[in-house]
Amino acid sequence: MDQSLHFVTLSTPDLDATRRFYGDGLGWTALFDVEEEVVFFQAAPGLVLGFFDADKFEQDLGREAPGSGVEGVVLAHNVPDREAVASVLEAFENAGGTILTPARDGAFGGIFHGHAADPNGVVWEIAHNPGWRIAADGAVVFAPPE
Amino acid sequence: MDQSLHFVTLSTPDLDATRRFYGDGLGWTALFDVEEEVVFFQAAPGLVLGFFDADKFEQDLGREAPGSGVEGVVLAHNVPDREAVASVLEAFENAGGTILTPARDGAFGGIFHGHAADPNGVVWEIAHNPGWRIAADGAVVFAPPE
Repeated sequence: MDQSLHFVTLSTPDLDATRRFYGDGLGWTALFDVEEEVVFFQAAPGLVLGFFDADKFEQDLGREAPGSGVEGVVLAHNVPDREAVASVLEAFENAGGTILTPARDGAFGGIFHGHAADPNGVVWEIAHNPGWRIAADGAVVFAPPE
Repeated sequence: MDQSLHFVTLSTPDLDATRRFYGDGLGWTALFDVEEEVVFFQAAPGLVLGFFDADKFEQDLGREAPGSGVEGVVLAHNVPDREAVASVLEAFENAGGTILTPARDGAFGGIFHGHAADPNGVVWEIAHNPGWRIAADGAVVFAPPE
């Protein structure tokens, strides 16, 4: 198995709120959108972030019980400087999300970050990490400042 | 905010089991590994999949209550043909994971797939999707067969 992830799909109680939040609110463009089923956004080269109707999400897994929402996962978006952390958090709030933690120094990794939730409760971390970069070939490089 | 996801970080009750599963079992190479804290794997261009010690995951979010594990998220790995679905599911099982659903036609999207869990209960979908491809520039293209 090669080391690759192609889709991250999240159980979504309110697809319309999701479309409004990411599309109208954050200005993202959907890659593929099926009414009452799923909306997909490309989120990295070769990588799709999908929001799948919560009932269908369970059905696709062959489970009957309704799920309990999205837990135990954080999606992170990195920004080029500390100031952008607060402004992106504000953009989340203006789009209909909820700020969970304000912009502040992180407990781990020497980063400056804050957290916000989308309308489904999906947690995003907005971070400035001076020791992280993406090389021209897509390789992620960690080089913490000395 | 540009449309990009840089990290997917999962709350992880057993980091050592995670290292054995992805590293020894599936043959993945860690990008960055901090004992008793986190292990990161690059999983797409510019995209890192992280497994973060469950207590520290909550602490990083400013929460005190222990989390309830990872719920409501599926990570998908696509394979080039139907036969590879069963063989990758078998690789998951041999590495210490658990098959949740066998290789079979999916309820949605015209795909052939099965599901397996890693030792933390994180659900992976192994799928052959004839209507999906990644273009040379990293753009994901959906073109369902007619």
